[in-house]
Amino acid sequence: MPEPKVGIIMGSQSDWPTMKEAAKILDELNVPYEARIVSAHRTPDRLWAYGKSAAERGLKAIIAGAGGAAHLPGMVASKTRVPVIGVPVQTRALSGVDSLYSIVQMPKGFPVATMAIGAAGAANGGLMAAAILSNEDPELAERLDAWRAALSASIPEEPVDD
Amino acid sequence: MPEPKVGIIMGSQSDWPTMKEAAKILDELNVPYEARIVSAHRTPDRLWAYGKSAAERGLKAIIAGAGGAAHLPGMVASKTRVPVIGVPVQTRALSGVDSLYSIVQMPKGFPVATMAIGAAGAANGGLMAAAILSNEDPELAERLDAWRAALSASIPEEPVDD
Amino acid sequence: MPEPKVGIIMGSQSDWPTMKEAAKILDELNVPYEARIVSAHRTPDRLWAYGKSAAERGLKAIIAGAGGAAHLPGMVASKTRVPVIGVPVQTRALSGVDSLYSIVQMPKGFPVATMAIGAAGAANGGLMAAAILSNEDPELAERLDAWRAALSASIPEEPVDD
Amino acid sequence: MPEPKVGIIMGSQSDWPTMKEAAKILDELNVPYEARIVSAHRTPDRLWAYGKSAAERGLKAIIAGAGGAAHLPGMVASKTRVPVIGVPVQTRALSGVDSLYSIVQMPKGFPVATMAIGAAGAANGGLMAAAILSNEDPELAERLDAWRAALSASIPEEPVDD
Amino acid sequence: MPEPKVGIIMGSQSDWPTMKEAAKILDELNVPYEARIVSAHRTPDRLWAYGKSAAERGLKAIIAGAGGAAHLPGMVASKTRVPVIGVPVQTRALSGVDSLYSIVQMPKGFPVATMAIGAAGAANGGLMAAAILSNEDPELAERLDAWRAALSASIPEEPVDD
Amino acid sequence: MPEPKVGIIMGSQSDWPTMKEAAKILDELNVPYEARIVSAHRTPDRLWAYGKSAAERGLKAIIAGAGGAAHLPGMVASKTRVPVIGVPVQTRALSGVDSLYSIVQMPKGFPVATMAIGAAGAANGGLMAAAILSNEDPELAERLDAWRAALSASIPEEPVDD
Amino acid sequence: MPEPKVGIIMGSQSDWPTMKEAAKILDELNVPYEARIVSAHRTPDRLWAYGKSAAERGLKAIIAGAGGAAHLPGMVASKTRVPVIGVPVQTRALSGVDSLYSIVQMPKGFPVATMAIGAAGAANGGLMAAAILSNEDPELAERLDAWRAALSASIPEEPVDD
Amino acid sequence: MPEPKVGIIMGSQSDWPTMKEAAKILDELNVPYEARIVSAHRTPDRLWAYGKSAAERGLKAIIAGAGGAAHLPGMVASKTRVPVIGVPVQTRALSGVDSLYSIVQMPKGFPVATMAIGAAGAANGGLMAAAILSNEDPELAERLDAWRAALSASIPEEPVDD
Repeated sequence: MPEPKVGIIMGSQSDWPTMKEAAKILDELNVPYEARIVSAHRTPDRLWAYGKSAAERGLKAIIAGAGGAAHLPGMVASKTRVPVIGVPVQTRALSGVDSLYSIVQMPKGFPVATMAIGAAGAANGGLMAAAILSNEDPELAERLDAWRAALSASIPEEPVDD
Repeated sequence: MPEPKVGIIMGSQSDWPTMKEAAKILDELNVPYEARIVSAHRTPDRLWAYGKSAAERGLKAIIAGAGGAAHLPGMVASKTRVPVIGVPVQTRALSGVDSLYSIVQMPKGFPVATMAIGAAGAANGGLMAAAILSNEDPELAERLDAWRAALSASIPEEPVDD
Repeated sequence: MPEPKVGIIMGSQSDWPTMKEAAKILDELNVPYEARIVSAHRTPDRLWAYGKSAAERGLKAIIAGAGGAAHLPGMVASKTRVPVIGVPVQTRALSGVDSLYSIVQMPKGFPVATMAIGAAGAANGGLMAAAILSNEDPELAERLDAWRAALSASIPEEPVDD
Repeated sequence: MPEPKVGIIMGSQSDWPTMKEAAKILDELNVPYEARIVSAHRTPDRLWAYGKSAAERGLKAIIAGAGGAAHLPGMVASKTRVPVIGVPVQTRALSGVDSLYSIVQMPKGFPVATMAIGAAGAANGGLMAAAILSNEDPELAERLDAWRAALSASIPEEPVDD
Repeated sequence: MPEPKVGIIMGSQSDWPTMKEAAKILDELNVPYEARIVSAHRTPDRLWAYGKSAAERGLKAIIAGAGGAAHLPGMVASKTRVPVIGVPVQTRALSGVDSLYSIVQMPKGFPVATMAIGAAGAANGGLMAAAILSNEDPELAERLDAWRAALSASIPEEPVDD
Repeated sequence: MPEPKVGIIMGSQSDWPTMKEAAKILDELNVPYEARIVSAHRTPDRLWAYGKSAAERGLKAIIAGAGGAAHLPGMVASKTRVPVIGVPVQTRALSGVDSLYSIVQMPKGFPVATMAIGAAGAANGGLMAAAILSNEDPELAERLDAWRAALSASIPEEPVDD
Repeated sequence: MPEPKVGIIMGSQSDWPTMKEAAKILDELNVPYEARIVSAHRTPDRLWAYGKSAAERGLKAIIAGAGGAAHLPGMVASKTRVPVIGVPVQTRALSGVDSLYSIVQMPKGFPVATMAIGAAGAANGGLMAAAILSNEDPELAERLDAWRAALSASIPEEPVDD
Repeated sequence: MPEPKVGIIMGSQSDWPTMKEAAKILDELNVPYEARIVSAHRTPDRLWAYGKSAAERGLKAIIAGAGGAAHLPGMVASKTRVPVIGVPVQTRALSGVDSLYSIVQMPKGFPVATMAIGAAGAANGGLMAAAILSNEDPELAERLDAWRAALSASIPEEPVDD
């Protein structure tokens, strides 16, 4: 089994229905990845260890999803230079605006590449990771181009009634 | 010099004009405190050490101020059982709504006692710390009561034109 | 039966499904508490009496939940020096943003330790009360540490599909 | 000097630049009023006394202005049946949205007649009070009609450059 | 049948489930009223006629509910000096924030006494109308006092589980 | 002087600094227009008359600007079939979000073609009016195409420091 | 079959339940139109071609609906002088506020005539297109006047219980 | 002069004061880049060409800044597989919330790696580009690590008064 190139991490099991959209994309594009639960608040030491070892373990991108006061993406970004992609998980009261602001408004020095709120954002997290890897992997670049072309080709000319 | 009972921490020097309102209140109430810059993202190890040692160092409350994707209060709360009081610092684009959401919307397990946005919130952070300490310090409780009584007594009956 | 150390108050019966999350936490941590309905608008005199007697009755923290124009936490804070923890109850039209702003934006002098909107915030209200009490109660501090350790230990390494 | 028919109250001296717009309108319409500082949090007993005596003192409307976690209008409304008109004072961080939500989102039973944020809202508070009094005061009704007619007549047909 | 003292108007039939809460309150307090559909946009001439005749027909308050770009309350206020109470009806996309802003943010000269979003706001519209009438109707004032006392008396001391 | 094809109307003189951006564009494109102050609340009868006569007077578009509870665009749209273009004027407390919601959220039956908040929106109101007229005026269409081409041509390749 | 005068375009099939409200209105008013799926991101070249040919193909208005980061209306407006009417489609997390801001906040030079969020906005898009065409088509103007009159006539005088 | 590895593009010259923060970071890290003005609306064909040629020209990241209805980042992302980093430029009325929503809420298929609003976001755009390049450039990775270490080292222990 190939070493993972992308780490998908999330704050809790309840984020998985959102975050597995990232995993699906990476499966479709044949990118090796791992999926882990790493809670910024409940398992801070796991977060520390994950961030610290990410580069040497060969990860080229980390896709981090969290909701509410979503500190996971930003905190892992403070511990590694590996590009961190943040996915704001939709929340009950504030619909994910809290997640979005907690992830995107990072101070100078520690960027998080923030995606849209929810499942579409998670899928796009997978695509962004693939785009980053494609810079140096022509075969993946071809698969990504083909994925995009297929998406475009799937759009019909006219809408249809149900 | 007495050991500090309260820690005032903030993400950067630029938060100090806000956070010193907390220090002023603690000075007025004669509560020993320390003030430190502890950045969640730029000095994560300092944050770790601060949180881990807080209880054994005798801190009874930590007042943590930060702006934007404000992770400091929540992250220190994940490393200590000492009550953490969060102060959302006002920001340029989003006026501190980003700070507020990043601080107040903590998941179950790791509360942050969130104050109002800006300087009034920082002052109230000092008062909340004093109220916590007053539970077991009758003399401080008296000083706090007197501070509150003086505030009430300072309100005139009628408004005056400038 | 031990005297209550924590008062849980709420604006109406309809807030109880949210606020009983605070009670559950206090039960788990073996902290004696009382739960009362105290409406800022419908029973203002009850609110007055509650605030005025809180300190002498031995309460060390008050957890106050309310929704909409949520005046209960702030008004009880104006009548007692006992630390007041505010829980913004989720509302139908504004999802609890109205509750949050009405509770957190207190003026200088009268802090309310504001928690997240809804049930997670109520549970955290219980934990914040326990943290305040833990400052002077080493056995409770141990139970709180154990509660937190158990929460951390409950997080699996990897997400699982349903 | 005639007995006041309208009470203008506000949370602090700093609200007066806003609230005196209400006073100006009542002066223009020759409606007797009083202006008082009544802080919900700093002088809660004064608020209690004000609300309790309002009806018997002959007040027909109370215009209450406050900012932030603005509890004054709603709390006075809980203590009197006299119609309460609320004016959300503009705030620094949240521009008065906090004030607006804290005033307008009152629960069933205790309405506050909420005006626009800021000075225009305060002026309209004066006009609303006058409209209420006009119901039973034909001479005031005439003055109010004339005031409105004059406002309409003051509008030019075409805009002019400065 | 007594002449109506209060007019309840709304933009469309779909507002009636909200606005009938105002009617219920007026029924409970024995205040004569009428209920009419008056659309600012679809029946502007009806709106004109309604506003113009309101004072001479003896109305002492108009409760106007509307949703979205809610122009009805403000437009009727521009045609009559009778106090206009506005009820923001909850909307699908924006939850009634659009209705609230369209109603409350009236310019100087034309106040609308704005209530909370939705059904509670409509009920409060009825209570505000009753409070206005109570100024000159001691028997209604007594009924209103009794209604408020009954509401307060209905609040239990402690919450109960379902 | 040619008959005006476009009416620019606004709620008050204070809207003119915004709305004259529409006038400037129409001047540049040589489209005859008129500019009038028509206040929905202060001069409702003028609004009525303006809307009713717009079509027969030959207007092909009306650009209506207003701020706050901005009822002018929607109300004139209820009185005429001539296309109404709405410009939300920026406001002090709510930055024009109140204006935007009051204009754009029109119910089915009475569209208002809403532009961006502020001066850019007013300029675009002029361009939208010109686009509507261009449908049947090939010379104007050419001038509009040229205006757009000039705008595009004015964009340099690279940014320059001041 | 007559040549289409109006183009209805949308970002995806999932927008059709919203956008067919525009089609229904055009059917009712007997205005020839076409409906196409044109995705700004997935089929950018189709968008280019659509915009470039719109004027010469005789389109007099384009109704463009999209949700989220809704670029379709603005991008087609950059490629044609034909008036573009934008419909913000309601979204899951942000209820269409994202769609609204992405459509309405166009920079100077490229107006999009923005409608309300959702189905009512789509219907109004059809009516706005009809209003634009009515400027030069007296028979359509008559049909539009009749449609509006019928809408007004359909409003009952009084609300009825279900 | 080395070929640019990163493209910085922006909607107009007025975005440069924000976007040059990205350029400064790339200068500090010795990453070759180009800076171009590419307006989605005013120069759509330039945008097309830029996107289409980006990969073959050897760009490994594109940093795209825009404000308001900010379509540039998303539209260039639809034309290239090169990772696109989006910077929401602060705006006058909506403070950049419009820019943020227009950039971050991209549909599945076309991610934009969104940064914080304003200058800090632009600087972080430069850092994110450097992090992407560091994946395959060990010397740049060292420089980036050093840059981050220097930032952390620059944080003093205690705040100082001005």
